[in-house]
Amino acid sequence: MANAAKHKEMLVETAATLFRRQGYAATGLNEILATSGAPKGSLYYYFPKGKEALGAAAVTLSGRAASNTLLEIKADTRNAGTFISRYCELLGQWMEASDFRSGCPIATVVLETCPQSALVRQAGQAVFSQWLEIVGEVFVRDGYTRQKARSAALLVITSVEGALILARTQASSEPLGAIGKILTTALKP
Amino acid sequence: MANAAKHKEMLVETAATLFRRQGYAATGLNEILATSGAPKGSLYYYFPKGKEALGAAAVTLSGRAASNTLLEIKADTRNAGTFISRYCELLGQWMEASDFRSGCPIATVVLETCPQSALVRQAGQAVFSQWLEIVGEVFVRDGYTRQKARSAALLVITSVEGALILARTQASSEPLGAIGKILTTALKP
Repeated sequence: MANAAKHKEMLVETAATLFRRQGYAATGLNEILATSGAPKGSLYYYFPKGKEALGAAAVTLSGRAASNTLLEIKADTRNAGTFISRYCELLGQWMEASDFRSGCPIATVVLETCPQSALVRQAGQAVFSQWLEIVGEVFVRDGYTRQKARSAALLVITSVEGALILARTQASSEPLGAIGKILTTALKP
Repeated sequence: MANAAKHKEMLVETAATLFRRQGYAATGLNEILATSGAPKGSLYYYFPKGKEALGAAAVTLSGRAASNTLLEIKADTRNAGTFISRYCELLGQWMEASDFRSGCPIATVVLETCPQSALVRQAGQAVFSQWLEIVGEVFVRDGYTRQKARSAALLVITSVEGALILARTQASSEPLGAIGKILTTALKP
């Protein structure tokens, strides 16, 4: 990869991690720059609009990474039940590994900046649509109608978002395990 | 109410509103003091530990207000289905009235500060327990076993939390209406 593109990626990846762990407002541009190791001028070069554009880019990048994980789990599982269990289990392990400082890669930024920031709002909306689409396909594969699959996907995505918030307050992956079990029962075809 | 107690309440109420709308880190102590109209010394008098203690107090206050709303809806409805519809409808109206700047009164603060802040974490945990308890009772009233009622309550609370995040990115109450319908179907006794 050309150095320039690499610098941009370093900035966005660092921003995504810091925003997720400590929040958008609490993370300064200087901290992002220093942690990323990218050269000083690169931040203003790639993000002339400043922090908001970086926030939107971080949401898009993290959203795509999560989409890839969802697609991998979809390819590795045969039905919605195992898909949900695997997904919740993975999120629980990921939260534990971060000492419960991680969580949804976009929720914190979205709650801090939306709907005021149109840039972040559009990025967040695109990410949620992507996730709902992928999870919906898992239910379509199980024989659900398009409409029922959309509803099931909405229940999965929203309840997992909520379980990630509870996991943060409890510093425990228990809410994710519980919601995984509840969803597989509630959504049995 | 004595002036002193009133000043404390003004501070916590203002903090709760600002934290919910613009986030914890983005809200400065001076802004809270100025918006609240409480006298200058009162902030340091009531919250010598500073912003973190105010954050925990705001979570507790907002959590209790939401609990009271849940209890009112419980008293006004006869079964879990109408309870859920009424609750989601009310949240949707509330979001609309705030131009989608409101949302869960504790999620943003929790995501920004937990698990790092033990004070906010304990306050958040107590609030979620309270909500789960109240919603659980709604299902017990419908004849659910304690265990099934707990699971149903967890699905309601987590998916509504998630729907509130989606509503912020879409600047629409549609996700709340949708999740209300999905929950009543998925949780039919």
